Amino acid sequence: MSEWQLIESIKKSATVQSPYVIVGPEDDCALLASHPKEQLVAVDTILEGVHFDSQTTDPVQIGRKALAVNLSDIAAMGGVAETCFVALTLSQSKSLDFAQGVMRGMADIAATFGVALAGGDTTAWPGGTAISVTVTGRPHANGIIRRSGAKNGDFIFVTGELGGSLESHHHSFIPRLTFAKDLLDLLQPTSMIDLSDGLSTDLKHILVAAQMDATLYTDALPYRQNISHLPPDKRLERMLCDGEDFELCFTVKPEDLQKLNPLKKQKTRLTCIGQVQPSENLQQPGKLWNQAQDELKFHGYEHQF
Amino acid sequence: MSEWQLIESIKKSATVQSPYVIVGPEDDCALLASHPKEQLVAVDTILEGVHFDSQTTDPVQIGRKALAVNLSDIAAMGGVAETCFVALTLSQSKSLDFAQGVMRGMADIAATFGVALAGGDTTAWPGGTAISVTVTGRPHANGIIRRSGAKNGDFIFVTGELGGSLESHHHSFIPRLTFAKDLLDLLQPTSMIDLSDGLSTDLKHILVAAQMDATLYTDALPYRQNISHLPPDKRLERMLCDGEDFELCFTVKPEDLQKLNPLKKQKTRLTCIGQVQPSENLQQPGKLWNQAQDELKFHGYEHQF
Repeated sequence: MSEWQLIESIKKSATVQSPYVIVGPEDDCALLASHPKEQLVAVDTILEGVHFDSQTTDPVQIGRKALAVNLSDIAAMGGVAETCFVALTLSQSKSLDFAQGVMRGMADIAATFGVALAGGDTTAWPGGTAISVTVTGRPHANGIIRRSGAKNGDFIFVTGELGGSLESHHHSFIPRLTFAKDLLDLLQPTSMIDLSDGLSTDLKHILVAAQMDATLYTDALPYRQNISHLPPDKRLERMLCDGEDFELCFTVKPEDLQKLNPLKKQKTRLTCIGQVQPSENLQQPGKLWNQAQDELKFHGYEHQF
Repeated sequence: MSEWQLIESIKKSATVQSPYVIVGPEDDCALLASHPKEQLVAVDTILEGVHFDSQTTDPVQIGRKALAVNLSDIAAMGGVAETCFVALTLSQSKSLDFAQGVMRGMADIAATFGVALAGGDTTAWPGGTAISVTVTGRPHANGIIRRSGAKNGDFIFVTGELGGSLESHHHSFIPRLTFAKDLLDLLQPTSMIDLSDGLSTDLKHILVAAQMDATLYTDALPYRQNISHLPPDKRLERMLCDGEDFELCFTVKPEDLQKLNPLKKQKTRLTCIGQVQPSENLQQPGKLWNQAQDELKFHGYEHQF
């Protein structure tokens, strides 16, 4: 397979016609339309052997995931995705079929969310396959939601279910763009993040930014069906520590709770899992406590370098 | 080294304060200021063992190159670079020092060209180091220059010198952003590209887009000092086929030639290397000929997959 064949194949994947893309993948740079609103940009990489297993996974699912993890980042700020750029580094052991499958999976989910493939770069090496995607988008008309901004007394919510994602959910998850839009139509969460490294790690980002701790309603945490057979303490650990849920975690002011009511009738499950509280030790904010105020000492996924 | 340590270290590399960046690397997405002009976006990846040798190369040079190849793409469309995003995939065998060196090299050249590090992603795996960078920028006030647009009779120019770049030039090259600005201040080239895969491959992109061939003035081609000792035919091959020159190649209408005069007094060497001519075979445009109209059958670098 030559680079030209692959690039031609990728250009054919660019099926979404977008008013945002004036020049697409055919030149040195893409040219995007001038942007009346501020622009969101997210970058995420998935790696063979870390985020996907190319021996056991359909390349269509790999490509889908490479874009979906980025769409999840746009959702985490309450935005709307517009364009994507893919840096595809292929293992030389892979066939053209593999590369085309990856691009088809990416094109499928791009079409679902109206995202245009606007450019990228293809390279090959003897090493594993790595896919870095850059997504651009626009904020919701009501603004963006940051990781920072949670306040004492805010309630903590998650979408969907937690834990056990590595069996299949990490490939099939739906980035919460639609939920995020519906949420921001109704109210301004005080903070939001997507769960990629496990609730305990990602909620900690929100709490550290706010210099706060939190109580978790451990009995209320929503778990995925495939970990329901575990004893409660083990199940709790999985809900707090397993990565790749790609659900949204956000905080809501007590006076805004009622505004969430319309969302409870929606398809996406929504659970109040706890409340923000003052930090026990301002030198080390971000601690999690159960309702008996015993510290929950769990840690989600962290890359080691 | 933990991921947090590395991310903190990367945030410290983000020294360029930019009016274009409202939210930087600290959140799920960056937020860029709304953009009164169309926006250029380029993505390029460099790989250990393909584009750099991490055993023999200072990590500062590796980081510099990772951003510089993208700045070269912005220059190729005549643009001005504004922000960058780095997807840094580190080999687990590498130290924090290595990662910090890479980021320092990137920050150095970012500062030179006023480019703000606005976000990115860090991952680690047992495989080699891969660095994908996304750069955003704005077009020159006089518009963008595409790969397509060359016409019969246009003269072909290159900046700098060709061939032998892999000895050191591919790390130390200066992306031609300043030259591109000076050029577009004076005239509109009919097409432009940067030379990353060798003149014969990259000029072919221009010629195929125009459905044209070209005559090259083989005796006029500017060669790098380190290939000056080679016999002329071998030197010609190196000038046509060696990758990573990162010079600009562009075409100029005959009636615009005089507008180039101010550039001849500048530091950047500028050479007229040939002329666009009708294609001998419209089924296979993009052929190169010498002045005796013998075909030059050389091919630059092409990734094999």
